[in-house]
Amino acid sequence: MRTSKYLLSTLKETPNDAEIISHQLMLRAGMIRKLASGLYTWMPSGLRVLQKVEKIVREEINNAGAIEILMPVVQPFELWEETGRSEKMGPELLRFTDRHMRPFVLSPTAEEVVTSLVRNEINSYKQLPLNLYQIQTKFRDERRPRFGVMRAREFSMMDAYSFDLDKEGLQASYEAMHVAYCAAFDRMGLDYRPVLADTGAIGGSASHEFHVLANSGEDVIAFSTESDYAANVEMAEALAPAGEREAATQEMTMVDTPNAKTIAELVEQFNLPIEKTVKTLFVKASEEFDGELVALLVRGDHELNEIKAEKLPQVAVPFEFATEEEIRAAVGAGPGSLGPVNLSLTFIADRSVAAMSDFGAGANIDDKHYFGINWGRDVELGEVADIRTVIDGDPSPCGKGTLQLKRGIEVGHIFQLGTNYSEKMNAGVLGPDGKNTILEMGCYGIGVSRVVAAAIEQNYDDNGIIWPEALAPFTVAIVPMNMHKSERVKEAAEKLYADLTAAGIEVLFDDRKERPGVMFSDMELMGVPHTIIIGDRSMDNGVFEYKHRRDGGDKLPIEIENMVEFIKAKLA
Amino acid sequence: MRTSKYLLSTLKETPNDAEIISHQLMLRAGMIRKLASGLYTWMPSGLRVLQKVEKIVREEINNAGAIEILMPVVQPFELWEETGRSEKMGPELLRFTDRHMRPFVLSPTAEEVVTSLVRNEINSYKQLPLNLYQIQTKFRDERRPRFGVMRAREFSMMDAYSFDLDKEGLQASYEAMHVAYCAAFDRMGLDYRPVLADTGAIGGSASHEFHVLANSGEDVIAFSTESDYAANVEMAEALAPAGEREAATQEMTMVDTPNAKTIAELVEQFNLPIEKTVKTLFVKASEEFDGELVALLVRGDHELNEIKAEKLPQVAVPFEFATEEEIRAAVGAGPGSLGPVNLSLTFIADRSVAAMSDFGAGANIDDKHYFGINWGRDVELGEVADIRTVIDGDPSPCGKGTLQLKRGIEVGHIFQLGTNYSEKMNAGVLGPDGKNTILEMGCYGIGVSRVVAAAIEQNYDDNGIIWPEALAPFTVAIVPMNMHKSERVKEAAEKLYADLTAAGIEVLFDDRKERPGVMFSDMELMGVPHTIIIGDRSMDNGVFEYKHRRDGGDKLPIEIENMVEFIKAKLA
Repeated sequence: MRTSKYLLSTLKETPNDAEIISHQLMLRAGMIRKLASGLYTWMPSGLRVLQKVEKIVREEINNAGAIEILMPVVQPFELWEETGRSEKMGPELLRFTDRHMRPFVLSPTAEEVVTSLVRNEINSYKQLPLNLYQIQTKFRDERRPRFGVMRAREFSMMDAYSFDLDKEGLQASYEAMHVAYCAAFDRMGLDYRPVLADTGAIGGSASHEFHVLANSGEDVIAFSTESDYAANVEMAEALAPAGEREAATQEMTMVDTPNAKTIAELVEQFNLPIEKTVKTLFVKASEEFDGELVALLVRGDHELNEIKAEKLPQVAVPFEFATEEEIRAAVGAGPGSLGPVNLSLTFIADRSVAAMSDFGAGANIDDKHYFGINWGRDVELGEVADIRTVIDGDPSPCGKGTLQLKRGIEVGHIFQLGTNYSEKMNAGVLGPDGKNTILEMGCYGIGVSRVVAAAIEQNYDDNGIIWPEALAPFTVAIVPMNMHKSERVKEAAEKLYADLTAAGIEVLFDDRKERPGVMFSDMELMGVPHTIIIGDRSMDNGVFEYKHRRDGGDKLPIEIENMVEFIKAKLA
Repeated sequence: MRTSKYLLSTLKETPNDAEIISHQLMLRAGMIRKLASGLYTWMPSGLRVLQKVEKIVREEINNAGAIEILMPVVQPFELWEETGRSEKMGPELLRFTDRHMRPFVLSPTAEEVVTSLVRNEINSYKQLPLNLYQIQTKFRDERRPRFGVMRAREFSMMDAYSFDLDKEGLQASYEAMHVAYCAAFDRMGLDYRPVLADTGAIGGSASHEFHVLANSGEDVIAFSTESDYAANVEMAEALAPAGEREAATQEMTMVDTPNAKTIAELVEQFNLPIEKTVKTLFVKASEEFDGELVALLVRGDHELNEIKAEKLPQVAVPFEFATEEEIRAAVGAGPGSLGPVNLSLTFIADRSVAAMSDFGAGANIDDKHYFGINWGRDVELGEVADIRTVIDGDPSPCGKGTLQLKRGIEVGHIFQLGTNYSEKMNAGVLGPDGKNTILEMGCYGIGVSRVVAAAIEQNYDDNGIIWPEALAPFTVAIVPMNMHKSERVKEAAEKLYADLTAAGIEVLFDDRKERPGVMFSDMELMGVPHTIIIGDRSMDNGVFEYKHRRDGGDKLPIEIENMVEFIKAKLA
């Protein structure tokens, strides 16, 4: 492609309303343009990247044995009523009526449509397993769309749906998709992790998210330094500290702590190691328990994990902290002075708390703490559970290595739905026993347009995007210097462009009448991996100059006649 | 692809609600399934065809120098107000509001969005010419969607928009797209015609429609037997008959015709050749003329062409026939007895009528006709114009050959818009003279999903679809007979499947445990071009059997070891 016949649309300035780097760079590199809030036009070089992601995803999902179909963007509302999701989705589900006042929605996902298709088309277990997918426009009417295509309203998604006769079949379909996702993200050259995820409100039995690691990620994931183990930080198990609890060495004493309402103040004012402090948090108890309050204890340097806590039978769903008023009514002291000693409420201690000795905690009297508390001697240890969020350096629950925390951007999700949808929609087949058997479903998504943004969040520098080879809009940039004055440079550039193109390489030939600096910075901004500079000075020495986008400033002289082979070797 | 791992979804019965053959066959061959009125899911084999059409279109439009982008399906309503099209489109333009009550539409086309993009991105004539296109989902809320994907509400369309500095530039862009369309339809193996079309209400300066010829087509096109000339039948010029008008041989006589209210009755009752009769039609006159009525004369065997008539300055826009009441008020006779002799109104005669002699027409007295009328002697010939629709055998207006009429399905349209949109949306660039110059636009569409249906309307027989090679969902079908009993057949089929697949050929391997008859009829229904039959009996003779979908019942024996090369040669 010649830049003179192309629509580059690069910008020098960073647009004001772009908060994150991928959004800024996609605008500056001319990849996208905003049409309205959360609606973007993919410009030529952006679309080239989007199509590359699409192609890789399509090929790998095909390899997993899934079959591509294409379902409409417009879906009848009545299908969403069948599963009850019309309510659950809330205003993100965009509804409208057609000219005959029949209600429809813009597809945010397609479980209902595909399940309705399968219940009509499939009637015997012999037609299973079946995995149907599409790469199609989706729409979610986000309350606050932002970050460009990272959280747009209209976006491109690969969504797959597997149908099996039983749990074993579902497990096999799920694993095939897990493998396909890894193959796809590997091919894209991204640093990513499949992480165990919470199955949450949908209530399926297993779920993994696929995260592209990037400092700007909204999610935190924990993974082992020595194994494949990775989990959403909310999900990662915090093991009990190794070894026996240390023996008591201090007496328990009550201390006046009028100015220490927080752990930080306590540590600072009393020179107490934070690992020797305990936070006591009061939350609403479940009806089955007593419907009042329950206390949760975590070490001063740890954070309570609400998702883990919510799974305890004693804790109310949804999880809710007690108010100061409720706390005072229950124990007669405020939130700054709570602890397990002389506590009238049931408490549950985190595994790390259970391993502590000689520790400090509130005395359940305003402005008083106990120091030197020891389990058994001063207060009985009750129920112990994993209720904290893991931190960097914790032992990995897989048994190998320690946990490391990194930020990630969720670009994919696989989910064992079980019979959630198939039961509501009565999607079954005749099983080998001749009886109707409700289908076991899995669902699988890759945010195709989001992958483009995530790849940038992971791969950029001050000069712009640094595309992994497989995603770059163009593989090679030819930058001729003063081509419009030097016939020799022009001829050489044209010949190289023709030769590389004939070799099937995607070349962006910058034949604009621009200063070399402008051309370089545009090619760097756009992230073209390989740049070849053609100039009179180097041609005097029989060479072109070569530069890889990831390298520093150094340019490599390559003999003119070897240039095509050099590039081919680089790409091999 | 193995049928055992695929979703064939073929049907034996023709669904009741499918009126036209392509709709019936797409349902029966498992290509599409209806989700709701005018909304279809593309099933695996349908999508394969759709993607082939898309790929060919993309490649040829790229060859024309157009650049691909992707605009959102959801568009802000306010852009449609800028051009005033929000009114014109009527209820076909589906409108809705988002969660913040902002108005949007589902894109039926994208002139507004692309013009808004270009006015922001392009500021100099040096960036021209520019042609931007997309292949994207469109939605038109048809009052009565029907014929499957032929007239669906949601459909896939390639829409391109060219921007030029002047008319010459627009002409060049237009011609490049004309060439690209021909290249695309040629590659698809379709019998089609680019035809001159009416520029109608949009008012551009030139327009061609691309029609796939098929007996079921909604449009009639006229084309020369001896040149490339083709036009929508409404548009084709009807030339004046060659030679001089014949001299009068009859006296004019008034005849009682009480039972002849129509030309057919007149011809039958009075043994008059239909070419010697004239129809006189009264229509509303334009304000500029007199706002009353004007008479239009065409030969008895010809049809008045309303589009041509509407272009006469004497005729009101929109075209409207006079009521019987208005006719009686004007001439004192009813519609069955009108004619040019003794007519108090202005009349305009078709070119063919002007060439007649000794003809019959109404006497403007109920139940009376004149026979033997001759121009000049009995009545003065006034204005003459081309106001009839051409018929089969008319001389071609290009001067070569005669016109032939065929039915066609419109699958593409190219249009010189001029400055219609760019003026309203103020899309201009700095011209070479340093002044703002409004852009000259062209727009170009191909109904990608409609092409699939049109290809079937042109290519089918009693057994199903007959795909042109370039569009077939699979190129080769392997049909092994009794594979599940004969190990030899199974081994041979597996080997052939592996060999053909390795050669990059798209094979559908029917490995189902079905009777051969079921397999054959499914492969024929789906229209796979090449079928290879593997059976014990023919293998005893060292051969497989080969059959092309277009051929009759004959199967060709091909030596087993030559089969792959035979197929490769067929495809070369």
